[in-house]
Amino acid sequence: MQGKRIVLAQYPTGMPGHDDLKMEEFDVAAPGEGEVALRTLYLSLDPYMRGRMSTAKSYAAKVELGQIITGETVSEVTESRDERFSKGDIVRAHTGWTTHAVMSAKALTKIDPDIAPVSTALGVLGMPGFTAYGGLKVHGDPKPGETVVVSAAAGAVGQIVGQLAKIWGCRAVGIAGGPDKCALVTDTFGFDACVDYKADDFREQLASACPDGIDIYFENVGGDVLKTVLPLMNDFGRIPVCGLIAYYNMSAPPQGTDDMPMLMRMTLTKRLRIHGFINYDHAEWRPDFEREMPAWVSEGKVRYVEDIIDGIDNAVDAFQGLLTGRYTGKVLVKAG
Amino acid sequence: MQGKRIVLAQYPTGMPGHDDLKMEEFDVAAPGEGEVALRTLYLSLDPYMRGRMSTAKSYAAKVELGQIITGETVSEVTESRDERFSKGDIVRAHTGWTTHAVMSAKALTKIDPDIAPVSTALGVLGMPGFTAYGGLKVHGDPKPGETVVVSAAAGAVGQIVGQLAKIWGCRAVGIAGGPDKCALVTDTFGFDACVDYKADDFREQLASACPDGIDIYFENVGGDVLKTVLPLMNDFGRIPVCGLIAYYNMSAPPQGTDDMPMLMRMTLTKRLRIHGFINYDHAEWRPDFEREMPAWVSEGKVRYVEDIIDGIDNAVDAFQGLLTGRYTGKVLVKAG
Repeated sequence: MQGKRIVLAQYPTGMPGHDDLKMEEFDVAAPGEGEVALRTLYLSLDPYMRGRMSTAKSYAAKVELGQIITGETVSEVTESRDERFSKGDIVRAHTGWTTHAVMSAKALTKIDPDIAPVSTALGVLGMPGFTAYGGLKVHGDPKPGETVVVSAAAGAVGQIVGQLAKIWGCRAVGIAGGPDKCALVTDTFGFDACVDYKADDFREQLASACPDGIDIYFENVGGDVLKTVLPLMNDFGRIPVCGLIAYYNMSAPPQGTDDMPMLMRMTLTKRLRIHGFINYDHAEWRPDFEREMPAWVSEGKVRYVEDIIDGIDNAVDAFQGLLTGRYTGKVLVKAG
Repeated sequence: MQGKRIVLAQYPTGMPGHDDLKMEEFDVAAPGEGEVALRTLYLSLDPYMRGRMSTAKSYAAKVELGQIITGETVSEVTESRDERFSKGDIVRAHTGWTTHAVMSAKALTKIDPDIAPVSTALGVLGMPGFTAYGGLKVHGDPKPGETVVVSAAAGAVGQIVGQLAKIWGCRAVGIAGGPDKCALVTDTFGFDACVDYKADDFREQLASACPDGIDIYFENVGGDVLKTVLPLMNDFGRIPVCGLIAYYNMSAPPQGTDDMPMLMRMTLTKRLRIHGFINYDHAEWRPDFEREMPAWVSEGKVRYVEDIIDGIDNAVDAFQGLLTGRYTGKVLVKAG
């Protein structure tokens, strides 16, 4: 049987395209002892993947030329040679961008489809939800009555951050691109306000949405949004840095005004704490997350929205769309 | 009797000069009930004062036009109308830049001249020592074997930071301007190394002085030094931001390469914690500081160097010198 997968043909400059990320067909292998054959149901697309397609130093190993692009999937077991898994089981696996894979059983996590739709294992109950949970709780250190602002608020992480802020007694203000996303953020996710960063009066709108200033800015984007947020930060504010999507396709440092002095001076005069973090450093967050988040999802206290793109043939276009804000919610590719 | 004091005549642009900071004579008043008359022995000059001479938002109230410039002194009691103080007592007081003052007794701290020379109440046993102690201990969170880098290493705060780093089991590397300061930092203060930021090969020298990278960068300066340090930071590094002297006379944001994206990307990929702090927010550091630091100073475990300028007439020139790195160690004006 033939499968399809997407490999790194060359390191992209700027936005990755079809010359960089190439589809190829391959013969699907049979599992050996202790291995499991998988058919991909959903492939997760995440901004961090852009960093793996780079020779620049990042927090994770880069993808080598010719290798399959890194990625997490929800997959169905089609054949098992390990006693822990049976045909038909649903698992979460790091297969990369592929329709089929053979994996060591040790590297798989079984998913209970009774808790929530299995796709949530890549979203609210997976890495994005975990990132939102620990990043806000530990690095944000929210206290009741504080104001939490999150950028990319309609995205996989942002939508969860604001809902958790509400659960923990804070005012939640989103920043998103366009009125449709903003409406989703307030109406579906229950944020107190959402501001469109594309609006001419973004700065004024953000200030009026945060009448008591900003105590926590959960950073997903960087760039002009960060510059707009900083003057509104309160003394002793916290900025968990989760992502910087505005910079991911930047091939050279921008020219113009150097904002590093402004950022550092704000950090000193407002006594800010700016803290970069990556979810996989924080196994210590997992017990609380596993106890609280599935319950909140099944009770409807935490809602989620997914944007599902059909077919791995469309994965490269979908990844471009992810980086440019085309989608709303957690972006998944339905592989089958 | 006539005294001399220096008041703010206008808000300076760039480096403060004699048109901005003006000397005036005044009649020395007599103390009322509960007050004490003081004669200044030493006036402390500190970089933070530049921030008070500005209408820009800072962490402390600005000096108003016509007001005396903010500053801490060590003073001698010349007349007391409060039972807690007697003629001849030595106190620490916020009198500002003046030769004489009348202060409420409640606002004074008596100094024991047997512990150390009284000038240390403005240096190693005063605000700069306290800032170094708490900033490194709490925001730096040093662990034995880690590498601590401090800028302005020959200065009032920097010289203490490196010595504390050694006491707490770390490698201490200073950054200072010129070979004389660097020699002082290693020979007198016992840092493991000190690098001259004016050297052509500063970057290479710093890298070779930190063979295991940098775990803590105690930030006093900002600017090019910060840019040079950042790529050498280790994962999970900490940057307590104590001062940013490179920016204090900046009247407009610099043009050229925007380094904010670089700083933010480093923060994320290396999971850095950048934390601005001001000593006076942290009364909770005081008990440990009061227990440990005077003992270390009297045992000679922590050494200090002062640069004493003679006469309040020279205070404005001395302040310019402080901002441009002319002096070594804690800068004091001997007022008498």
